[in-house]
Amino acid sequence: MTTVPTDDAFAELHSRLGAKLSRAPGDLNAHGYDEGGSLQHYPPHAVVFAENEQDVVDTLAFAARHGVPVTPWAAGSGLEGNALPVRGGISLDVTRMNRVLRLDPDNFSATVEPGVLYPELSRLARPHGLFFAVDPGAEASLGGMAATGASGTGAVRYGTMRDNVLEMRVALTDGRVIRVGSRARKSSAGYDLKNLFVGSEGTLGVITQLTVKLHPLPATLASLRASFPTVESAVQAAVLVMGAGVRPERLELVDANTVQAVNAYKNTRYDETPTLWIELSGRDETDLQTQLNLVMDLCGETDGYGFERATTEGERLALWTARHHAYYAIRALFPGHRIQSTDVCVPIAELPGAIRETQRLLDAHDIHGPILGHVGDGNYHVSLHAPGDDTAAWARTQEVLKGMVAYAHGVGGTCTGEHAVGLNKRKYMRAEHGEALDVMRSIKQLLDPQGILNPGKIFPDE
Amino acid sequence: MTTVPTDDAFAELHSRLGAKLSRAPGDLNAHGYDEGGSLQHYPPHAVVFAENEQDVVDTLAFAARHGVPVTPWAAGSGLEGNALPVRGGISLDVTRMNRVLRLDPDNFSATVEPGVLYPELSRLARPHGLFFAVDPGAEASLGGMAATGASGTGAVRYGTMRDNVLEMRVALTDGRVIRVGSRARKSSAGYDLKNLFVGSEGTLGVITQLTVKLHPLPATLASLRASFPTVESAVQAAVLVMGAGVRPERLELVDANTVQAVNAYKNTRYDETPTLWIELSGRDETDLQTQLNLVMDLCGETDGYGFERATTEGERLALWTARHHAYYAIRALFPGHRIQSTDVCVPIAELPGAIRETQRLLDAHDIHGPILGHVGDGNYHVSLHAPGDDTAAWARTQEVLKGMVAYAHGVGGTCTGEHAVGLNKRKYMRAEHGEALDVMRSIKQLLDPQGILNPGKIFPDE
Repeated sequence: MTTVPTDDAFAELHSRLGAKLSRAPGDLNAHGYDEGGSLQHYPPHAVVFAENEQDVVDTLAFAARHGVPVTPWAAGSGLEGNALPVRGGISLDVTRMNRVLRLDPDNFSATVEPGVLYPELSRLARPHGLFFAVDPGAEASLGGMAATGASGTGAVRYGTMRDNVLEMRVALTDGRVIRVGSRARKSSAGYDLKNLFVGSEGTLGVITQLTVKLHPLPATLASLRASFPTVESAVQAAVLVMGAGVRPERLELVDANTVQAVNAYKNTRYDETPTLWIELSGRDETDLQTQLNLVMDLCGETDGYGFERATTEGERLALWTARHHAYYAIRALFPGHRIQSTDVCVPIAELPGAIRETQRLLDAHDIHGPILGHVGDGNYHVSLHAPGDDTAAWARTQEVLKGMVAYAHGVGGTCTGEHAVGLNKRKYMRAEHGEALDVMRSIKQLLDPQGILNPGKIFPDE
Repeated sequence: MTTVPTDDAFAELHSRLGAKLSRAPGDLNAHGYDEGGSLQHYPPHAVVFAENEQDVVDTLAFAARHGVPVTPWAAGSGLEGNALPVRGGISLDVTRMNRVLRLDPDNFSATVEPGVLYPELSRLARPHGLFFAVDPGAEASLGGMAATGASGTGAVRYGTMRDNVLEMRVALTDGRVIRVGSRARKSSAGYDLKNLFVGSEGTLGVITQLTVKLHPLPATLASLRASFPTVESAVQAAVLVMGAGVRPERLELVDANTVQAVNAYKNTRYDETPTLWIELSGRDETDLQTQLNLVMDLCGETDGYGFERATTEGERLALWTARHHAYYAIRALFPGHRIQSTDVCVPIAELPGAIRETQRLLDAHDIHGPILGHVGDGNYHVSLHAPGDDTAAWARTQEVLKGMVAYAHGVGGTCTGEHAVGLNKRKYMRAEHGEALDVMRSIKQLLDPQGILNPGKIFPDE
């Protein structure tokens, strides 16, 4: 069981950390909500602004001694309450651990502290002809992204954080700091602890360092927009593109509602129809044109039309900025609304059925929910929204989500492709994992016997 | 502690399994050695030929009740003693669990039993324009490949078993059968148990079913051979090719000794020089030629010469068959020799240095060791060999291996890229993992408290 720390206890921690320990109301307040727009606010009892690995180790030792909860915090860009200290205690803020320790272009990798934001890493890698390929859109930290197993628009080609983290250092509650993974591209040396910690949402240990892959910048890029008569026909085109062995850099669906929100927010004039936004890379212009022609043919097979290629770098970036801001656009269009962004993921051929069922559920429950997503992965988002105080409408959004998750489970999919479980999807864990959930619980018990690391996450109250 | 089973105990198991339980000397003998050519022979006390998941569950229940070791067995193609029942007990043979349960081309996946050999799966997938991309060369089983985290020539483009297994069913020692992973391409739903079991060498549970990825067959293929003045210059060319963002289907190094062995074994006439064998895929002939030209330019930069393109499908297959048979060719060339195939893997830019150090070690210890490998991954093999009864020479091979592993660890690499730990590399686990090894041990203790699953593997005697 965790406890509420006493003032005396905090005095002890203060004697070690000095000004890195804050109990200022502003700091507590700022660490009590994330981008997910939870109705409830969860301020911690204290914030530790760790500046190095030893600060993390010392904070964990303190927490273990006093039975105080510790919840790691980085950019705060999570959507599922992943980093909210729901049982109070310490918010362990690693934003000051933001050094790029080693840029290693020859080995296509970089070693960073967990608070480094991924756009910053890409910016530093660019002069070497490289970039960091996982791109969730928000200004997320690499530590937070590893902790949630994040992905985003680049995953269709470059994989998720799981595929892009080579090695990590992880601080455990018992004072050990272990190195997991390897800098080699592959290893069969014992149990894969690296992937055990990736996606564990700070419930098993605290990431203090990561070595991640960098990828060569594509030689040439082109972006294409295509309109479709229905969301389903757009999804079918995406399935065809993936089946043809084209390896797009990005392959995104936005529905008419989303385009409308983006137009309003970014003052753009995109056709307000179900749309695929596709980015392709090529060895040269000829190669690019061959692929563009193939993709347009495939889109045409499911009645795609109005193809528009972004011809300048500026147009291309504007298009992707618009896509990345879709979530914020929807938020802006519905002031006062609470938004829950779902992230169900299904095997790709099951995606048209999943989208059809989602639209049926939205209609049946009278809920407005723009649909967008990384359809090349089978991953899609519905921005379920309703006024924060409309409890009846809010209850109906939860019925929609429940139906979507049940459908995904029925076709071998998952309730969360990239946002992780956090608070909101704990209730689906038993249905998704069956007895494997008990194995997860026993691993949690093994590595955090006191239950002090990010309590109240991942596991349902059963 | 494990025990030797009594006749009475086996009578109990026989009453459940009938003829699926064998204690025939021929069966025991056949399950006591693998392809690794261990000097020592480890016959089990009994072999269970499991025909379905329930047979596996019943065998594990029996073993747990009596404290009898159980070591899973499939194709027996391991090189590290991974499947040898070194403490006796039961060899749990899953070769009869060899059904392809579901071929799902629309979702680019197949669900199989663990005894299915991977070439068989590729054969079945081919009419759908798909193939299974992990290709270790030997006639390996998918269950065994998952258990060892195998890879091979295809990994440079398609990743390892870790990347290609989506979902598994795993039988635990306490009677539970859990489902790990998901059929979706990505998931952030809780701890990654799938990757915990992939590469665990049957020490945590027994794989009873796998869903694996299938990939589209490349539209066109070309294979290129290039000779080099030195092994190091060949490796440097491989590093350049990877750095240029070319994504070869395969990128293999063979040294002059290996080509010589292959020529003798397959009656071929390849130039007996350090050689890169490169397979490229393209959208069409133009695309292919562009890549071939680029690769030849890059090879030329490190003094590559004698480029030869396999122009017919027959030539291409002959070339890859020769490469795949290199290990057997070396065995054939040195009758009576014991061979230990190393599989160190390092970050790619460290590969020239690693190869240089390996050659120095071979010379210093007067050991003959042909070098070949999947150099696009930073993974290479040395076939250390000496007469089985020449203990002095054999001790020197171990000094070479020790030096290679120490070098790899020094540059952030691993002692095993794809063959797994088995018996032979246990001694390097502490140096490679430090305190993380203790976390692995505690997970082993958690899932197999009696230590009955494949005892004597992965973990060193400390």
